[in-house]
Amino acid sequence: MSGLDDASRGDERAALVAWSAIAEGSDEVASWLVEELGASGALAWVRNASADPVAATMRLAPLAQPAAIDKAVSAAEAWIARLDEADPGLLVRRAAAVGARVVTREDDEWPRCLDDLGSRAPYALWVRGNGSLGALLERSIAVVGSRASSAYGEHAAAEISGGVSDRGWCVVSGGAYGIDAAAHRAALTGPTPTVAVMAGGVDRLYPAGHTDLLRAVMERGAVFSEVPVGFAPHRSRFLARNRLIAAAAATCVVEAALRSGALNTVNHAVELGRAVGAVPGPVTSVSSQGCHRLIRDGVAVLVTDAGQVLELAGPIAADPVKAIGAGFGGPAQRAAFDAIAARGSRADEVARGAGLGIGEALAALAGLELEGKAQQKGGMWRRVNNATN
Amino acid sequence: MSGLDDASRGDERAALVAWSAIAEGSDEVASWLVEELGASGALAWVRNASADPVAATMRLAPLAQPAAIDKAVSAAEAWIARLDEADPGLLVRRAAAVGARVVTREDDEWPRCLDDLGSRAPYALWVRGNGSLGALLERSIAVVGSRASSAYGEHAAAEISGGVSDRGWCVVSGGAYGIDAAAHRAALTGPTPTVAVMAGGVDRLYPAGHTDLLRAVMERGAVFSEVPVGFAPHRSRFLARNRLIAAAAATCVVEAALRSGALNTVNHAVELGRAVGAVPGPVTSVSSQGCHRLIRDGVAVLVTDAGQVLELAGPIAADPVKAIGAGFGGPAQRAAFDAIAARGSRADEVARGAGLGIGEALAALAGLELEGKAQQKGGMWRRVNNATN
Repeated sequence: MSGLDDASRGDERAALVAWSAIAEGSDEVASWLVEELGASGALAWVRNASADPVAATMRLAPLAQPAAIDKAVSAAEAWIARLDEADPGLLVRRAAAVGARVVTREDDEWPRCLDDLGSRAPYALWVRGNGSLGALLERSIAVVGSRASSAYGEHAAAEISGGVSDRGWCVVSGGAYGIDAAAHRAALTGPTPTVAVMAGGVDRLYPAGHTDLLRAVMERGAVFSEVPVGFAPHRSRFLARNRLIAAAAATCVVEAALRSGALNTVNHAVELGRAVGAVPGPVTSVSSQGCHRLIRDGVAVLVTDAGQVLELAGPIAADPVKAIGAGFGGPAQRAAFDAIAARGSRADEVARGAGLGIGEALAALAGLELEGKAQQKGGMWRRVNNATN
Repeated sequence: MSGLDDASRGDERAALVAWSAIAEGSDEVASWLVEELGASGALAWVRNASADPVAATMRLAPLAQPAAIDKAVSAAEAWIARLDEADPGLLVRRAAAVGARVVTREDDEWPRCLDDLGSRAPYALWVRGNGSLGALLERSIAVVGSRASSAYGEHAAAEISGGVSDRGWCVVSGGAYGIDAAAHRAALTGPTPTVAVMAGGVDRLYPAGHTDLLRAVMERGAVFSEVPVGFAPHRSRFLARNRLIAAAAATCVVEAALRSGALNTVNHAVELGRAVGAVPGPVTSVSSQGCHRLIRDGVAVLVTDAGQVLELAGPIAADPVKAIGAGFGGPAQRAAFDAIAARGSRADEVARGAGLGIGEALAALAGLELEGKAQQKGGMWRRVNNATN
């Protein structure tokens, strides 16, 4: 599912990979163009826009008002300038050199929760780590907060993230200092892998002081970015990155000052229709002022523990028995079941996706087979259609 | 307005005084009877119920179902047993001996906010202190919380109560250890007097460890109870007492464990249609769990400072300029204006009601006169009718 071979799977996939290097995730003109023409069609249009702007304009005429078309034609200049660096083969080779793979919406590992971003969904994800990004993000909670966190906030982040992981849910955060780090660290001690989303390329683990932490995240989970390897983490990329974190099933803000960047993630979550929780703290602490404001304004629900955070992800998530075990012989079976891709998965893929050892995964799969929930043929495991999902 | 002479003002007033010794504030059968027959009529009915139960039953026949009447007739036995101790003259003399006065709904000093309790309004209030209870409670905020408070909670209570007092509002609380004491203490340092509500008679300042604190409260404010002097602070009286605290314009819970008595005050406030605020705290503190529950359940609004607490009392209270100064030459004038009783007040009464020194009060009254808001005749100050209230 990853590596150089994938790039040749089809024009569309290759074009999406190229677009991840051409346009920023926050570039709405590019998103519109890709949505209208397809990634590959949009790429062809850009290539032509330089040579024949009149033809390029006419191509869009049936699709938009003149003002919107003019915007696209002007934007094309900047995209064209990046075309040379946007060769999919080159990008994928560079990624492979640092152990990263690319995942597009054409791939099984694509996290379906990102589709809710609509035209703001990323073109491709650049991923490092042994976990299956799709399986992990499908059952994920964003735990975010201030870099300037207090000891109290870090403790609260750890309690909540540890509990989220214990209940079989993946903690997603931004890998930053403060609350993000406390969330990842606590999740690392739990049974469910954690995922960190970078603003720049995954070659450059950011911040540098978290290199070891992010390597630990990659061992069973993943570190990913929507920009290719080699791209710098600009400020606008941090803001755009936050929408990927907010695509988790729910977002929990642990500590945030009134102008904290964590509130930007909250705005994205609200736009996505995701529930937001905020952890209260002492009214004497500026680090809790943003949380208190969110609760007062009715944007966030006051949450005090992992159970209450999981309630935000829906009634099934909130009930650990139902969430982890409903109809299954335990959390490992449930996780293994969830990790079987629609087109089938090998046992090692299931193990990786479920965050299980291969032995645990085989035992879980055997259990699922016994219960008629999964079956194996030629080394490939498939779900049995009428099994409870 | 107080002392022995008041008892002879009328049968109704004397009967209300008697009822405060006969029935508990939580006795709904007595409240119903007093509502139906008037205090004096109800007292006559009780006296007769022992001698002629049949006549007593028939007297109520047009007013209620047989079951309700039977309840009243049975309850009458307990009331009759207390009649000897319920002589208004005796009660008022005993009160006067400890410097207490009695205030009934027939008196100008009656706090009108207690009328919102309807049939659960107290019969009479036994008051010690130099402040006018009516004027103080009309602009009051209940600040309540756990006896087992944390240093954080006491700090938050002090910040909020000090701010409430600074903005010209009276802090009402229960005089207990913990949050109550922190609230009273901070209010004592502010410009507006504070009021403590006792569960037992005001002869016995409770808890004994707060004798000095409660004496300080009485200097400009008041300590009051709905039970006469000599009555013990039973558990049921603490619960009934809480509804008097909750009659303030809004209630703020600073710290409360999940089963804190402060939550009983909150229930009363909600029943009265008063807004409730709760101060958040660390999720690691059991003393904040009750507050967090109230906020999560939508019973209370999260509040972090005095300004937000006063918002709960209404838009005018929230704006200190409007609250204290609207149309007035400053807070002293406003307070003096509010302290003028409907039937007129002497300057010393205004000073006491407004929590001002006599010199301050005279200056404020002179200002009101200049502005056509009040006028003086024969030593009595009266509001000018069309003045802004």
